[in-house]
Amino acid sequence: MQKLVIGIDIGGTSTKFGLAARDGRVIYNSRISTTGHDSFETYFDILTGEIEQAIQSLGNEAEILGAGVGAPNGNIYTGTIENAPNLPWKYQLPIAKLLQDKFNIPAMLTNDANAAAIGEMVYGGAKGMRDFVVITLGTGLGSGIVANGSVVYGHDGYAAEMGHVTVRNNGRQCACGKKGCLETYVSATGLKRTLYKLMADEVADSGLRDISYNDLSTTAISDAALNGDPIALKAFEYTGKILGRELANTVAYTSPAAIFLFGGLAKAEDLIFDPTKKHMEDNLLSFYKGKVKILPSGLGDENAPILGASSLIWKHLEENNS
Amino acid sequence: MQKLVIGIDIGGTSTKFGLAARDGRVIYNSRISTTGHDSFETYFDILTGEIEQAIQSLGNEAEILGAGVGAPNGNIYTGTIENAPNLPWKYQLPIAKLLQDKFNIPAMLTNDANAAAIGEMVYGGAKGMRDFVVITLGTGLGSGIVANGSVVYGHDGYAAEMGHVTVRNNGRQCACGKKGCLETYVSATGLKRTLYKLMADEVADSGLRDISYNDLSTTAISDAALNGDPIALKAFEYTGKILGRELANTVAYTSPAAIFLFGGLAKAEDLIFDPTKKHMEDNLLSFYKGKVKILPSGLGDENAPILGASSLIWKHLEENNS
Repeated sequence: MQKLVIGIDIGGTSTKFGLAARDGRVIYNSRISTTGHDSFETYFDILTGEIEQAIQSLGNEAEILGAGVGAPNGNIYTGTIENAPNLPWKYQLPIAKLLQDKFNIPAMLTNDANAAAIGEMVYGGAKGMRDFVVITLGTGLGSGIVANGSVVYGHDGYAAEMGHVTVRNNGRQCACGKKGCLETYVSATGLKRTLYKLMADEVADSGLRDISYNDLSTTAISDAALNGDPIALKAFEYTGKILGRELANTVAYTSPAAIFLFGGLAKAEDLIFDPTKKHMEDNLLSFYKGKVKILPSGLGDENAPILGASSLIWKHLEENNS
Repeated sequence: MQKLVIGIDIGGTSTKFGLAARDGRVIYNSRISTTGHDSFETYFDILTGEIEQAIQSLGNEAEILGAGVGAPNGNIYTGTIENAPNLPWKYQLPIAKLLQDKFNIPAMLTNDANAAAIGEMVYGGAKGMRDFVVITLGTGLGSGIVANGSVVYGHDGYAAEMGHVTVRNNGRQCACGKKGCLETYVSATGLKRTLYKLMADEVADSGLRDISYNDLSTTAISDAALNGDPIALKAFEYTGKILGRELANTVAYTSPAAIFLFGGLAKAEDLIFDPTKKHMEDNLLSFYKGKVKILPSGLGDENAPILGASSLIWKHLEENNS
């Protein structure tokens, strides 16, 4: 009988879910919209209804060991999503308990970046590593820190908010209310803000001057940079400089064996990896130099959110059987 | 029979050592000079000779369970002190192995700030806490980070070098070769540098203008501040601002329940705690606000280094018996 885990990734726009095996195969995956439902209860019924059908379609061939969930503000200790700013439901959502009751299996919840970190450990590039960091680069910047083989959740479950480390006093306004947060410089949005600042500061011609702020994508900036666009190249260099400098501080905090970059901006490959590595190395204490790898995620693209979420359960089961 | 652990704290000037009970009583303590010996072997023979005598003087009443050592650049994984810049011996010193062979007991080594963190957990104010940070404020700034109940050593044993997090790009020259490191602002030396900068920048009269840089102590600056000296007061405010801002970043990394301040500068009490708390709170993400305590060390003064060092063994024994 095949052992499987339910993985659910709740994003601001869509919710991805599936059934994952321990070896990383995702034997079922689907998605529903996170928004547009008349209540959380309706959303939850649709989500679990689809999962139930998928499980039934496997007949007696599968045993479901648990359900893992990655979601913004997901708290491992309480199993609730608490006041996530970009989800439609503002109150506390006891997701883990609801799933446990629904399927009669263990259920665990954490935020998406922590789930990505555990996914990296269970399925990805961090197999066997006990100390590493995952940085997720999307609209914002998320992070998961693993030390001594365990995710650093902090006393309240909310550790590893590296996106809100201050990198510039009185710097760019952040959506969180503070100024100068790392994610205002290092994220898809941060890159775009840098590009617009450079278009204001400099006179160089650029095809990107024909695209509106709201229409501009990370891919368009990458493509321009790969074609030699001087402003796009500078924007990546600046983004990598800010990231690399902060990663030198990250190393002084937790001395990881590797730092994995995950998500949209990381797909720009050398454009972001090269300046990040350079500026990290330049700012490291001497005895850290040349020892910390900066790597792309080993989770792949399509199923990464489902693998990350399901890995919570695999990790949990392995820790409790060892 | 009384169970005791050997605690050894190797500093640049003197080496403190003693025998500590699990309840925090130090039933023997002494010190020798770290410098002035013709070789490391001579130093080690004198040190262990004195410890041996102390143990023998207890006759059959004591059982020695192990030896813990705190030392600059002490590495938990290898048990060696590696190229410590402020010790007289530049090569690798396999301290843990040497003590193990000498006394036929388990021996463990880490750096002094990590030892202080474990000491806080075993004997001090962090009993029962699973997530906290200790900052040691001496000539430099050391730190120990505890997450999930374990010290964060990093992949190489050298994590938690918060003294060398960059807080100002192109800031003050640090002894490590980098610029703008936290300890160039926040430490006994950092406070003094700030005071001298303020005496250069401002015209206010101050009794401290009669004291040379090399003669100026943290206590003199504290005393002046307590007597209303405007420049001394500003120097503490500035030091607390830089520390508080970085601690807001620390919280974004590891979300500790408490941050303990330890060492000379922490003795200035409100002068350093008040601005540190204010600027940390001002820079925290909203959901961290009001939740993280900044506390003085609970280890006391005199025996803290011996307790810190011996706590490595108590912690180790308790983890392996649980």
